[in-house]
Amino acid sequence: MFTSSGSDVSLSDVASLRAAVDSCLSSFLDRKAQDASRSGMPEEVVSLLRDFVLGGGKRLRPLLCFHGWNAAHGRGEPEALVHVAAALEMFHACALIHDDVMDRTDTRRNRPTVHRAVRDRLLSGEHRCHDDQLTRRAHSTAVLLGDLALVWSDELFQTAGLSAAQRTAALAVLHQMRTEVMYGQYLDLLSTGCPTTDLAVPLQVIRYKTAKYTIERPLHLGALLAGASQQTLRTLSHYALPLGTAFQLRDDLLGVFGDPAVTGKPAHDDLREGKYTALIVLAMRRAPAEGAARLGRLLGDPLLTDAQAEEARAIISAAGADRATEHMIRRLHEESVQALDSGSGLLSADGTRALQNFAHHAALRTS
Amino acid sequence: MFTSSGSDVSLSDVASLRAAVDSCLSSFLDRKAQDASRSGMPEEVVSLLRDFVLGGGKRLRPLLCFHGWNAAHGRGEPEALVHVAAALEMFHACALIHDDVMDRTDTRRNRPTVHRAVRDRLLSGEHRCHDDQLTRRAHSTAVLLGDLALVWSDELFQTAGLSAAQRTAALAVLHQMRTEVMYGQYLDLLSTGCPTTDLAVPLQVIRYKTAKYTIERPLHLGALLAGASQQTLRTLSHYALPLGTAFQLRDDLLGVFGDPAVTGKPAHDDLREGKYTALIVLAMRRAPAEGAARLGRLLGDPLLTDAQAEEARAIISAAGADRATEHMIRRLHEESVQALDSGSGLLSADGTRALQNFAHHAALRTS
Repeated sequence: MFTSSGSDVSLSDVASLRAAVDSCLSSFLDRKAQDASRSGMPEEVVSLLRDFVLGGGKRLRPLLCFHGWNAAHGRGEPEALVHVAAALEMFHACALIHDDVMDRTDTRRNRPTVHRAVRDRLLSGEHRCHDDQLTRRAHSTAVLLGDLALVWSDELFQTAGLSAAQRTAALAVLHQMRTEVMYGQYLDLLSTGCPTTDLAVPLQVIRYKTAKYTIERPLHLGALLAGASQQTLRTLSHYALPLGTAFQLRDDLLGVFGDPAVTGKPAHDDLREGKYTALIVLAMRRAPAEGAARLGRLLGDPLLTDAQAEEARAIISAAGADRATEHMIRRLHEESVQALDSGSGLLSADGTRALQNFAHHAALRTS
Repeated sequence: MFTSSGSDVSLSDVASLRAAVDSCLSSFLDRKAQDASRSGMPEEVVSLLRDFVLGGGKRLRPLLCFHGWNAAHGRGEPEALVHVAAALEMFHACALIHDDVMDRTDTRRNRPTVHRAVRDRLLSGEHRCHDDQLTRRAHSTAVLLGDLALVWSDELFQTAGLSAAQRTAALAVLHQMRTEVMYGQYLDLLSTGCPTTDLAVPLQVIRYKTAKYTIERPLHLGALLAGASQQTLRTLSHYALPLGTAFQLRDDLLGVFGDPAVTGKPAHDDLREGKYTALIVLAMRRAPAEGAARLGRLLGDPLLTDAQAEEARAIISAAGADRATEHMIRRLHEESVQALDSGSGLLSADGTRALQNFAHHAALRTS
């Protein structure tokens, strides 16, 4: 998925990191299943989490943790780095599971979301309870499974075998990251369904929910494990923040114009949800009054038809919002790559090339 | 609230511990509010959590952490102990906030629950969004605030200034505790609304959700900070597990027969929720077939009237389930106090007296 020809951080390194992280997650969950069985706890708790965590996902945060480590002159793929990367992925499972409950999303990674899988399980169970409680119970169970992923991510981190210096440095960033993403989610919730023509609103959500959480902090964590200086961290931030914004703007475009078979997300979900993404705000600002009003009425309709979604897309395109977003993405991508050039003395050559390749893919991907 | 006359751990110690924990929580939240304001984050996130965390609560887990420390010959009230106790309370805030969303509870501690407070806030806000989204958004926000309490509890723990030995020992118990309570909550969810006449079902929920989480693990944490041996921990477990069960059985009794003005919980909530508590299971087993069937129909009705609740109480009483529960409580209380006698050589004299007093109160309280 991530091409990195001409780089010392090769495709095989990335595949090997992914395999190592998945193996770490799998062993951890094996131990949890054994603990559960020993204490007479229901085994499906672990298997529901396992199906979700190991059933797919891009492993973006582990990968960026690895890139941060390499860029800061870390060598090899030490066990501690893999553990921290696995902890990031387990934390992300919590974020996704809770997010899907909040958004009532039924599908993720081309599979049922956790609350949906729980509901299917309850429906097929022998001991069926009152039907009307099923959905609520499935949501509650998913909240709980997300909580468990959160506390288990912490356990993965705490048992990573870090040195005292690594632990102190990494913990400070981990605390920041977790707080930032919660604020980002909160801002996202606040803005959902609330019409705005202020581009700063979605851009602030992106900063916390994506740019810092997905790109900057994982890079920092990996770099700190390699003993990075404050100056190295700043360079990585200058790379990460514009790139993270470009990454999310691409997501917004794909959410409306992407092929569901490729993105793995149901068609029209973004429109049905009614989020005022940067793309939508740009359309609202640029469309003629009548088009903007019509778009506003279409957005957030959970029963939006194919024809109505097509109409919304036509309004967005006619306003040039897709092209304006594409332009922002390219500008941000450039800014991000320039930050790497400015920091060329600080970062390792192979780490820099891997980050360049990553930026290219993240900004210009189709899924 | 906890009388401990004749003990070296006096009422003033308990009050002082409570004040110290609250002051630690308050300073922590002050710092979080400053951080939020510096980074342009919405200030209500911290104030919503502050209102909930500092607005009431018995501080049971901090208190038991303190008792564990004293019983294991810890002296004074060191900053690290207070921090760990505050971390337990912050973790508990997450458990309660998520629990209240799952149960759709409107009131706790005689105040609105978090999702309710969020809803009221959204209703009175200037920028009102679609009305139909309000409740869902309030629930989502509460899930998020619970997540934040969880990650902040971890931050409180990690910045407690523990020695390496204290940290390693305490972390192992903390990981166990958090996993256990999640399993307990899961079992609780599974059993809600599912009729059973098997007393083992509610007793297993009690073991994980209350006995271990509320009593045993906080005692262990405090004891480990004082360097307790495995034998001391076992003695504390023998005290904690029966007492924790007695504590929850008392809660079940108060939930059905208690005075809402004293318990702070709305009348009939337990009956309306339809949980098959030990009290209800005993009633189902002992009531004549007709009474049991009627009770089964009344349970779980969210619109249960005063008269119907009275009818349910009458069936439970006529079956002698309240007296049988009271009997179990007294037997468990005795077992718990005997464990202290057996461990008299291991535990400090004043710590033992404090634990005796606590057991007396926990088993025989009226609120």
